[in-house]
This record gives sequence, C-alpha cells and structure tokens, in this order.
Amino acid sequence: MSSTVVQSESTLDGRPASGLVQGVEVPGAPYSTILPRDYYFDPAIFAKEMDRVISRQWAFVGHVSQIPKVGDYFVHKLLNESVVIVRESADKISGYLNVCRHRGHELCKKSSGNAKRFSCPYHYWSYGLDGSLANVPGVPDGTRFDYKEFPLWDVHVENYQGFIFACSSNEKPPALSEKFSQLTADLAMLETEKLKEAHREVYEINANWKTLLENYLECDHCQAGHVTLCHTIDVNAMFDGSTWEAPFFTGKTPLKEGIKTSSMNGELVSIPLGKLKDRSEVETGFGLGFGILPGLIRVIIHVDHVVIHALRPISVDRVEWVTRWYVREDAVEGQDYDIAKLTEVWLVTNSEDKAFCESAYRGLQSKRFTPGPLNNTREASVPVALRAYLDLMKD
Amino acid sequence: MSSTVVQSESTLDGRPASGLVQGVEVPGAPYSTILPRDYYFDPAIFAKEMDRVISRQWAFVGHVSQIPKVGDYFVHKLLNESVVIVRESADKISGYLNVCRHRGHELCKKSSGNAKRFSCPYHYWSYGLDGSLANVPGVPDGTRFDYKEFPLWDVHVENYQGFIFACSSNEKPPALSEKFSQLTADLAMLETEKLKEAHREVYEINANWKTLLENYLECDHCQAGHVTLCHTIDVNAMFDGSTWEAPFFTGKTPLKEGIKTSSMNGELVSIPLGKLKDRSEVETGFGLGFGILPGLIRVIIHVDHVVIHALRPISVDRVEWVTRWYVREDAVEGQDYDIAKLTEVWLVTNSEDKAFCESAYRGLQSKRFTPGPLNNTREASVPVALRAYLDLMKD
Amino acid sequence: MSSTVVQSESTLDGRPASGLVQGVEVPGAPYSTILPRDYYFDPAIFAKEMDRVISRQWAFVGHVSQIPKVGDYFVHKLLNESVVIVRESADKISGYLNVCRHRGHELCKKSSGNAKRFSCPYHYWSYGLDGSLANVPGVPDGTRFDYKEFPLWDVHVENYQGFIFACSSNEKPPALSEKFSQLTADLAMLETEKLKEAHREVYEINANWKTLLENYLECDHCQAGHVTLCHTIDVNAMFDGSTWEAPFFTGKTPLKEGIKTSSMNGELVSIPLGKLKDRSEVETGFGLGFGILPGLIRVIIHVDHVVIHALRPISVDRVEWVTRWYVREDAVEGQDYDIAKLTEVWLVTNSEDKAFCESAYRGLQSKRFTPGPLNNTREASVPVALRAYLDLMKD
Repeated sequence: MSSTVVQSESTLDGRPASGLVQGVEVPGAPYSTILPRDYYFDPAIFAKEMDRVISRQWAFVGHVSQIPKVGDYFVHKLLNESVVIVRESADKISGYLNVCRHRGHELCKKSSGNAKRFSCPYHYWSYGLDGSLANVPGVPDGTRFDYKEFPLWDVHVENYQGFIFACSSNEKPPALSEKFSQLTADLAMLETEKLKEAHREVYEINANWKTLLENYLECDHCQAGHVTLCHTIDVNAMFDGSTWEAPFFTGKTPLKEGIKTSSMNGELVSIPLGKLKDRSEVETGFGLGFGILPGLIRVIIHVDHVVIHALRPISVDRVEWVTRWYVREDAVEGQDYDIAKLTEVWLVTNSEDKAFCESAYRGLQSKRFTPGPLNNTREASVPVALRAYLDLMKD
Repeated sequence: MSSTVVQSESTLDGRPASGLVQGVEVPGAPYSTILPRDYYFDPAIFAKEMDRVISRQWAFVGHVSQIPKVGDYFVHKLLNESVVIVRESADKISGYLNVCRHRGHELCKKSSGNAKRFSCPYHYWSYGLDGSLANVPGVPDGTRFDYKEFPLWDVHVENYQGFIFACSSNEKPPALSEKFSQLTADLAMLETEKLKEAHREVYEINANWKTLLENYLECDHCQAGHVTLCHTIDVNAMFDGSTWEAPFFTGKTPLKEGIKTSSMNGELVSIPLGKLKDRSEVETGFGLGFGILPGLIRVIIHVDHVVIHALRPISVDRVEWVTRWYVREDAVEGQDYDIAKLTEVWLVTNSEDKAFCESAYRGLQSKRFTPGPLNNTREASVPVALRAYLDLMKD
Repeated sequence: MSSTVVQSESTLDGRPASGLVQGVEVPGAPYSTILPRDYYFDPAIFAKEMDRVISRQWAFVGHVSQIPKVGDYFVHKLLNESVVIVRESADKISGYLNVCRHRGHELCKKSSGNAKRFSCPYHYWSYGLDGSLANVPGVPDGTRFDYKEFPLWDVHVENYQGFIFACSSNEKPPALSEKFSQLTADLAMLETEKLKEAHREVYEINANWKTLLENYLECDHCQAGHVTLCHTIDVNAMFDGSTWEAPFFTGKTPLKEGIKTSSMNGELVSIPLGKLKDRSEVETGFGLGFGILPGLIRVIIHVDHVVIHALRPISVDRVEWVTRWYVREDAVEGQDYDIAKLTEVWLVTNSEDKAFCESAYRGLQSKRFTPGPLNNTREASVPVALRAYLDLMKD
C-alpha cells in the first residue's frame, strides 16, 4: 500500500480540494479499500498502534459532576493503566497512576470516594492530593531517601467544558480547548459543566478496534441496519460541514426536519440543556458533535441530552465500548426523564453495531480475505480516517 | 527419526510385501513407536500439518438430504473457515466462503435455509447461487469495477453417493468417486443418497488430533476398554481385507458371527437400507467402511444405519470430534427407529475414547516422556499411518 | 543490577557480619528494592527460574499418614508433572511419574488408593511397586525388548520426620535430614511422623510467585494487615535466631508472652503433640519452623498443630497456594479439635494475603512501574532472599 501525506485540514466526507479519494489506495484502481488483513490480526501491529496512535491521544474518562468536592476521586481504566482522577483543588483536576511508589500495590481499593490523602493499604505510604509523598511509616523524609523523589506518577488531564480527558504518554497532547475552540461558545451556552451521568453501558466486542472505527465512519449500513437510529437522525447529512484536523473532529449530528432530539419519536427525553431551557421554543434539527479519530471518541450533543461513545482497545481482537448518557444536573429521574426512553435509541443501535462488527471480524479471519472496493461516496470517510491512521503509524 | 518412502498401496495392518513393520522406526530396534513428544505440542508443527496434511484433504461436511431443493444451503465450519454449502442447481452442489467480498462480513446469519441470492446484511452486496456478484447498491456493474472480479471465494465440493465433502485448498484433491470406486456399486445398492441424519453429537477433546488418530487405528485397547462396542464388532478382523492408498482407506467393519448390525444386542436399530429392504432375510456380518487417513474421517455402514466420525483440529491441543448417525430417509422415528437405541453403542464408545485420549495426552505432557514400543501386530496400523503422515509433512 | 556473592550462612533479617544490607541494590542508594518489573512478567525469565530455582529444589508433597500400608499411594502435582507417591515397602517411600512407558497414558485414574501393581488402563502394561515393568500383554519380556529398559520414570523422595518431599530434577537435592539436622530431636519429641491432615485449602492466586515470596518475607504489613494473626504471633521477633543457608531456612514462629498456640484466643485448638502430651503443663511461646526459600515452603509447628504452606508456580502470573493443617493422628474431630477453630487464623490471614498479592501484582503491571525503597529493617529479609534467587539464576 502506498499513501501520500494527508492534508492537515480535511473533511471526513473524503472530498478535499484535489477531488481524489484519499485513503487506502489500490494502484490503478478508482476505489479505496480497508486495510490488508494483517492490520486486524497481527499483535505486533496492535502493539505499534497502541504506542503510536492510541496511547498518545486524549481518552475520555468522565465528567466533572463525578468529583464536585476537593478530594473526590474515581478510578478509571486508561488503556491498560489504572488511574485515579481527583479534584486536587476547587479549580484543578489531576490524575495519577493508581500505583504506590513503594512496591506497586494499588492505592485505591474503592472505585470512587473522597480522600484527604491517598494511603496505600499495604505498608501505609501516603500521598497528598497533589501526588507528593507525605509519609512513610518508620522512615522520616531524608533519612534514607528524599520524599520528593517518589511522588505518584501523574497523567495529563484536561477538563474541557466539564468533560474530562486524560493521557498517560510522556508528551501532553494538544489542548482540546484550542482544537475545539469553535465549539466552546455553544458548549458554554449549553452549560455542559452542569450535566450528570444518567446511565452507562459497557460492552466487550470481539473485534479489532479499527473494525469499529470503520463501522462508525460510514452510514451506508444505517438505512437498513439501524432503522431505529434513522427515525430521527439524517444519516445522509452526517458529515456535512464537519471539520477534521486528525485526530480532532467536529461536526453535527443532523436531525431530520422538524425533529427535536434523537429519541424513538423525536420528542424530548429530558429537559433542555443550559440556556435553552429559557427559550420559548426548542429549536429543531439541532445536534452538535465532536470527537477524536482515529481512535474513537464521539460526543453527540442534542438539545436535551448528551451521548458519549468511547472505545478502549483491549487486545488485537477485543475492544471495550462504553456509552454514557448525560442529562442536566438538576433533571429529576421519573419526572424530567425516564432512563428507558433516554437510552432506547442507542441501546438498539449499539446492539446492531456489535453484531455487525463481530460478524465482519469473523469474516475477516478467513485466510483468503482481501478487502474489496469501498463505495466512493457513502463510505468515503473510511479510507480518509485509515489514511490518517497510516500516517500516524509511519516510522 | 528416519523414514523411507511408503508403498503407495499398502494395508493398515502394516504387513506390506516386505514383511517389515513400517512407520516410526527406532534405529536398531525391532519395534516402532508413536512420534516424538514435540509433534503433539509444538504449535509450529501443528501449523505445518494443517497446511500439508489436513487442509489439502477432503473434509466431510454433510449429506445431500440437508439441501434437497435448489437454493437450500447450510453453513459449515471447514477447518478454520466458515463455508456455505448450497444446491446451486438440481444436479450441482457448490461451496463458498461465508465471507462478503466487500468488507468481509459473514453472508449467512442463519445456519441453514433457502436463498435465491446471498445478500450480505451489512451493505447488501448480493451474489447468485453460482457465487457471482449480482448487485452492489449504488455502484452499477462496470462503473467503478467489474462485478466479475468479485465473485464469492469458492471451495472444492464433491458429492460422493450422497455424502458431501469439501476442501478449501488451491488444488482440488483426487476425486472420491475414483478413489473409492470399488465401493460405488455397494453404496448404490444401499441407496446412500436416500438417507437422513437422525442424530449428531459434537465433542471437544483436549488432545492433539494425532492422539485421536492413534487411538482410532488400533483395537488393542478395545477388548477391555470398549466392552460395549465389542458385543457386536469383531475387532480382531478390523483391518482384514482393507486397502489403503494414503489417505484413502476402504475396509469393512466386521461383525461377529450371526450379528446383523452394531447395536447393544446385535439386532437391527432401523429398517434395512436401500435394496436390502426387499430381501427376505437381512444378511449377518455385513459392514462396509471407508475413510481418510491421516486426518480422520471414518464412514461405517451397516445394513440399517450409517455412522460417520470426523475430526476437526482446532489447535495443537484441542480437537472437535463429530459423530453423525444416518438412517433411511423414509424411516419413521419412534416406529422404525429409536434414537436412544440407534446411538447407544457409539455414545458409550466415544465417551470411553474421549477419556483415553485426554488421559494419554495429559501423560504425554510430561517433560520426560519418550515414546515406548508399540505392539508389532495389534498396534501395527499406528506406525503405518504415522509414516504416511511424515511423508506428507516432508519439505 | 549488580550483586556479589551472598554469604553461604546468613540470617533472614539481613544483618550479616558486614552490617550492609544485601539484596537488590541501587547503585549509590542506601536502600534495596524488589526486582525490576520484567522479573514478574517475562515468560522467559519464568521458564529460566522454573529450571534453575524451583524445579531443582524439594517440593512438599504430603505426609506419611496418607500412605500407611505397603502399596498405598496418592497422586500429586509436582510442578507440572503428575507423580505417584507410593509406599513401596514398610520403610521405603518412592515416587514415579504418573505416565505409562508405552504411549504416555496416565497410570492412576484415582487420586489415591492401594495397588499391588500399577496397571495402565489403556493397554494394560503393568509395573511393580518398585517401578519395574512387570508385564506387557502379548509381548513377553525379551521377545521384542527387555522389560528392564522400560521402568517407570522415578523422582527423588525424602521422608523427613513424616513430611514427604519430592523433586523431579536429575540431581538429587541435599538431604533434608542433614540440612535441618538441628531440628530433628525436636521433631522426634513432637512425633511428627504421627500426625494426620485435618484440613487442606487450595488457592489460585493471580500473581507472580515472587510477589508471594516477598509478601511472606516481611511482616511490616502485618500489624495493620493481619490483625487476626497478630493476636498471638509476635511478628517483631519473626526472624530472631533463624538460620538460613539458602534455600534451607530454620527459625521459630514466635508467640507473644503467655500464649500457647496460634489461634483466635491463644488457647490450644487440639491436644498436644508427641511427648508434650505427657507434660503437666504446656509451655507458652513455643513455635518451631523450617522451610525452603526461595521457592516457598513454610512449616509452622505449634504445640498442638502444624501448618504447612507451599506454593506451586503455574505460570508467570499465576500460583497455586496450598495450606494444610495437621493434628495428632489419634486426635478425635469434634472432641479433641474442631476444624473451624483449628483453621480460622490462617483462613483469615491467607485471604488477606491473597488480596495483598493480587493487588500488588495488578499495580506492578503498570508500564511505568519501577521499584521503590524497601524499609531497611522491617523489610530486610526481602532483598536477602531476592539476592539468593539472583545467585541461583546466574549462568
């Protein structure tokens, strides 16, 4: 396969200035394809892409509403690392590996809580909320070693409008507040800092993560394969007006005409977000979105709720897929929203996508598999994203 | 280990013209052995034997009674490939990988059915019963590529007297109708095209497939280990008059004197097959057989029923073992045959063999294991088959 | 890491003549650490340490009370080998691989029993209690091979004061009766040959075996982490007066003042052992111990019962941990001892240690883990044992 440098600014519908379809090219053929079979099965490629593509990007870890008070924390699986996300001070959220500097014991036994200090339950080394080593029983600071040499290992954290992202690579990824700056005014209006998680669903999917990525990047399978989703979402306009400076993607989640939100009947499933609540009439067709591609975080913002999809590759043939649903922090369950109604569209759609991805991945396992022609328009965003992936994989 | 070329025509009782026991020889010793320990545990040897020995041979996949009408199909696991076996026309049965040429999604979601076309449920590429690409939604033939370049990947199929065999290697294996030609008149008389599957049993056995092969090739363990089987089968005459041009084996399944069929009491367990039904008296001692060795397919034909054993290696230490029981297509369950009585002998015997093979394989795992002397007469067919296996494995 | 030769005679509190802390040294730093991360995760290092450290040492396999009569046997998993331990004669205990010399089938199907001969259930090769091949059906001795060439593979066995140890390496490890000679008089007085197993508990622990070793070698985590154990055991004196010529360790299990045995309340949980029964008053503070380190066998002897811990590494990340409780052979359950009371202290403690080891091992998995400073006094025995381990691992 050959690939030339992708334009730094592009669109996911695959039609840059040149008019050529970019991505995974077949020499002499007027179409692109997905990647050669090995990319989906070779553990060495998986290890390389974890290093080059996935671990250097922001991962979505949660929302500020989980840790409102100083010392509030939760434990999160950040790729293969267990990390503690903590509100260090009123205006600072930090992240540390959930690992004691003494002999590696996990610091936090509970999945969330409030702490004044983090005390390892094995030999009681303790750490401040800023990660500094505060006490080693029987070994005062400076007697055998300096405490300042053994702070908790930290990870990069960004709170972007209430959504918390983390990264454990050496180099901090670009600031999301800059990369998504065009969205900031809208998110402020929607007061996305004032949400709460209403439901979370965790799936383990027997497929390579790129099979999920490819599935997510085209809606050619949606009309027939996601009837429920297509009640309200206008899949044909999915990438209209989107911008994508890999891996940062912003776009809309376009609704059909006259539709207020993504739900079974197009009617609201919770009270309007932020300042929308004060408007006399909720607008129709509204749907913001942003995400990180390749990798796959997709934030979908409707007038009354937010849905966030995030994947976590476990191995070359397995992915964890987490979907979270958010509503206003002051919405009352049973009165302002009903969890069954809030979640139904994506519960159905995720179940359909899990079946598609696992069946596609089983088929890919055939020793004789070679990829076939992608649809130049309806699947155009697939090779564009794969091209960006290949650029990140370059030595 | 040294081995010279095996005679192309031999017998499984190990006594070719020369009178020497062939197989796995120990220099200077007047006996043979099974293979060195690594042959049963090394994944690299397993990969090689899958390539050289197993994947190039016919595998048993089913019976014509499963697909009587044009468009009838069933899905079968052919080694590691999922294949669709379909009645393409009244007199033609074909096989295809169950994999769409577009992005690899499985074509058939159901394990059997009837289709006019095979339509992939992901993006609706559709294929004719002959495997040709018939339609790609939104991409008419020739606009971006020629449909004829993307037919389903096919596999070799042979319908031998109603029994369907398949192979997914490049080269088509020799025709079974030629290799088993001496049996054809008998099978026609027995009308083996007009059977139906009465029962199927699937076992997963924690052993290397060659441990099953070795177990199956000698009946020295039968008198004490398979009391039920030995009620009716004359194990001492097991390989008398058999011919074996590796891997094609034909022989009898000899019954004891006065015995009509293999059952708990030697009496029939279903109505006589084919033209035998019209005879005034069913003959005793009848028992045809054919198979493929090494690898292991064993077709056992009695006057009133057929039993087929087939193995499918899964990994170096695991095998799937499937036993199917067939009766006349017009036999009526509960009247002409009873499934419990039909299956009892082999349910008991398979269970005993599973225990023998798994216990032998656990013992083989010992780091200090080296194979001991085989019995030169009672186990003579084991080294002969292993010798043929080694010849197939040669570079 | 650099390490110089460890003194052949040392103590596990890490204070040899030189006064320097030995073990895993950090150049220039006045403290030791556990091993680099790879030592706990690399399968190649695991394979090497199984070969160099674990398989060449004695493993604890059971007690003479399990096989009182000639021909009594039990099957034991000795690292990865299944072995049969048998009373060959009144005064001789032998061990053989549980593997027939013919085709590797397991000899013994039952986990214990009495045998005049060991007869393989597959083809009925049979062996005497001395391991010699006694009969091959249909092949008289000398007709094809000499029976004496095919005895059972044997393993080294030592009965040390009633405790049976075995080893399947080529070279026999040093005699325990010599290495633990200073204990022999005490064990004879306690009549440890006349015990019986009252209870056995088997744990599978998701950790590298050295994480268990490290946990077991320091009691810095005990005061807070093992409250139940510390009711009676004086953890501060744990290694006082111990001697240790790697891997042979002898020491005490010191009890707090006025305490008779390790139990929930310090009172006896069975009748006194051996000749102690005849004394008017049971002494307090008594507690013998011996063991094998690295590797991990720990025999703990109190006035009324014996506890034996033994580990069996399964893979680089999994260990089997077995604890056995012994009482006098003539103690009557329900009258002289109660299993719940006998076992409570170690059931609680083992459960705590399992949690500590698995949590420490999960933390060690962090890609960024590097070991921190060990406490120079309270954890002093950890680097000493790791140093001995490194010496055994040297090429």
